[in-house]
Amino acid sequence: MSTLAVVGGRVLRPDMTVERADVLIDQESGTIEAVGDPDEVPDGDEHLDAGGGLVIPGLVNAHCHVAMTLFRGNADDKPLDAWLQEDIWPVEAELQAGDVVAGARLGVAEMIKSGTTAFGDMYFFMEEVAEIVAEAGVRGALGRGCITAGKDDEQAHADFEEGLAFAEEYNGAAEGRIRTIFMPHSLTTVDQSFFEEYVPRAREAGLPIHFHANETEQEVEPIVAEHGQRPLAYADDLDLLAEDTFVAHGVHVDAAEIDLLAERGTAVAHCPASNMKLASGMAPVQAMLDAGVTVGIGTDGAGSNNDLDMFDEMRDAAMLGKLAADDASAVAAPTVIEMATQGSAAALGFDSGRITEGANADLAVVDTDALHLTPEHDLVSHLAYAARGSDVRHTVCDGTVLMADRELLTIDEEQAKREAEERAEALFERAGV
Amino acid sequence: MSTLAVVGGRVLRPDMTVERADVLIDQESGTIEAVGDPDEVPDGDEHLDAGGGLVIPGLVNAHCHVAMTLFRGNADDKPLDAWLQEDIWPVEAELQAGDVVAGARLGVAEMIKSGTTAFGDMYFFMEEVAEIVAEAGVRGALGRGCITAGKDDEQAHADFEEGLAFAEEYNGAAEGRIRTIFMPHSLTTVDQSFFEEYVPRAREAGLPIHFHANETEQEVEPIVAEHGQRPLAYADDLDLLAEDTFVAHGVHVDAAEIDLLAERGTAVAHCPASNMKLASGMAPVQAMLDAGVTVGIGTDGAGSNNDLDMFDEMRDAAMLGKLAADDASAVAAPTVIEMATQGSAAALGFDSGRITEGANADLAVVDTDALHLTPEHDLVSHLAYAARGSDVRHTVCDGTVLMADRELLTIDEEQAKREAEERAEALFERAGV
Repeated sequence: MSTLAVVGGRVLRPDMTVERADVLIDQESGTIEAVGDPDEVPDGDEHLDAGGGLVIPGLVNAHCHVAMTLFRGNADDKPLDAWLQEDIWPVEAELQAGDVVAGARLGVAEMIKSGTTAFGDMYFFMEEVAEIVAEAGVRGALGRGCITAGKDDEQAHADFEEGLAFAEEYNGAAEGRIRTIFMPHSLTTVDQSFFEEYVPRAREAGLPIHFHANETEQEVEPIVAEHGQRPLAYADDLDLLAEDTFVAHGVHVDAAEIDLLAERGTAVAHCPASNMKLASGMAPVQAMLDAGVTVGIGTDGAGSNNDLDMFDEMRDAAMLGKLAADDASAVAAPTVIEMATQGSAAALGFDSGRITEGANADLAVVDTDALHLTPEHDLVSHLAYAARGSDVRHTVCDGTVLMADRELLTIDEEQAKREAEERAEALFERAGV
Repeated sequence: MSTLAVVGGRVLRPDMTVERADVLIDQESGTIEAVGDPDEVPDGDEHLDAGGGLVIPGLVNAHCHVAMTLFRGNADDKPLDAWLQEDIWPVEAELQAGDVVAGARLGVAEMIKSGTTAFGDMYFFMEEVAEIVAEAGVRGALGRGCITAGKDDEQAHADFEEGLAFAEEYNGAAEGRIRTIFMPHSLTTVDQSFFEEYVPRAREAGLPIHFHANETEQEVEPIVAEHGQRPLAYADDLDLLAEDTFVAHGVHVDAAEIDLLAERGTAVAHCPASNMKLASGMAPVQAMLDAGVTVGIGTDGAGSNNDLDMFDEMRDAAMLGKLAADDASAVAAPTVIEMATQGSAAALGFDSGRITEGANADLAVVDTDALHLTPEHDLVSHLAYAARGSDVRHTVCDGTVLMADRELLTIDEEQAKREAEERAEALFERAGV
């Protein structure tokens, strides 16, 4: 049995206190064996030197479309509907498996470099995304985004069957680092009859469910018009809300919907940068937290962000949460860190996001010796407001070092960039946009 | 006469196009002598290798309190009034010149590292800030923040006299890299009689004017109650608005006030991160731009940000501007880059912010070979949405290289961090907070 000791650092504990401590990892189980005073934690077979930096739980990106890194910067400054219809869907229609391999590898590399060790992902060619998760050593909560809009009945059924089949086949893959989720795309892009047919099948198969909900005002209105109820009440009637369900966005939710989320134990993946960039609106994050809703943080795809840096996202969540609440004390620094670690991990169903005995050994070491992190009044504040992904020095997932001294150990960074550049060029040429 | 050639890069031109070009700098005048095709631009005595990166104008931080880096992370998540009264003013009362030296050096180092070459600064001990500007090689538009609130008549007069004296003495210092500005703190913290006494004196002395305006809703109400008019109409009656005036924030401005700003030629330093973090509100940036108002971008002090990275700020400005306009096409990528370069430079009165013949040779080279900047669909988009301060490789101001390959050449980085840490500790101990 081999052990890894993360030494010489200060550790962010689950209660958001920071203490000088070492972390002993059992690499076979990929879990944390001990955390504590350097004199008391047993020595490991191997060492990872934190160099006085801050050891934090690996950040968890609760909602992503990772292969969309290929779309980064291609079409900005457009509202959601026009952007999807003019710039995204025509290109996605030309997507090939190799594009998703390249986009996912690029995105996962970017996440490891910025301290993210797990992500939730909804896209196509999910076998390829699973392949990259396996290769890169991160965790993924993966599901095919199933959609009926724009499809005939046969195509739609094929899509949903594929979504279920992927989820049943890949659950527990990559030595347990992959969890699978049934992911109908959204309440407006999936016909009611498909929810009625497939949600019971997903529940029977024991699959968690994830979908986009209440992202824009324009998405709420047609549901109210057609079904006579708010989106989440409609979702609840379809048995879409439960403890192993999480929704993306939750921007335009009213008080009754917030209560419904809390009652059902349904988590929300908050995507502040995407919500701002697409002018979707401000999610009432503090109100959701106050009601007892579990809220995680996600970057959404790189097309609407445009990076996958969870440090940016924590900062954005704090900033936007205050504006939404009209209260500078709302969504405070410790809160956004909890959201991006424990909150997101709970949404995805991973026992990660906490540096504590028995939890998954997923962590990142942040170099705190930087001008923008000086003086050190409060490291929790610095994490939320001043640190950035480039301050991450080492990244560990499942007890394995994925990045040491900013060098990626499981992905060839130069090749990932080159391949993504080439695939993007060919893809956009095929799509003629 | 010595020349510096910035070679091997792609240059962001004032019209937001990018072309493969070299930049020849006349170091004596500190201006750009030629920009163009590498085969046509004459060779320089010395070379700075852009390594295929993007050569951009040095970013201009239009509104800062640079020495407040000492407050970074000390008190977060509080509304403006409580934060100022409980956490900032009691500590500022204990400030010594050496604290401002340390805080300014730290902040200027942070700015150079993130590609900022000029800043506007309102604070105390401005001689010390000027000393750091001179030493570091950046540009500063500096003014003492003059305030009557909490002072008796004699103290207030002394403060304003000092503000005028500083402005008259230091204008053109540091080989012209320092411009001075008369800076009454804000419309609510300065008595009307002081505006009546000192604004004419500042105008007579030919000094530009800068003050905080319309930052919070709570600040607008008492002005309307006391003077029967909106803040900027009140300011206009006091002769506070003019072409060489710029206001900070401008969050709560109505349509008539926007027109007034446009008419008078008064610029706005937009501070999106600070406005979000203090839950002050959303400035109507697109509406101001549409009306013809010059809008720059500032970080505000590190206490309410918490970094001085203008890349963060451009991203925030785009994101928040869209939300404020309820329009994803508002405040687009090229717009925020123009704001952070040409807009801010115009507000501060520097002929910087444009890479073009005759302009100040203030520029930064951004390393574009990064995962989060791949693929290269659009470098302007990447600058606004995905690049960060840590991607800056070289920084040049006034024709002098201030950072090469991320190494600061005019400031000892380790010493700056150590000194700031020590001064902050002693300062907060004195203040007993």
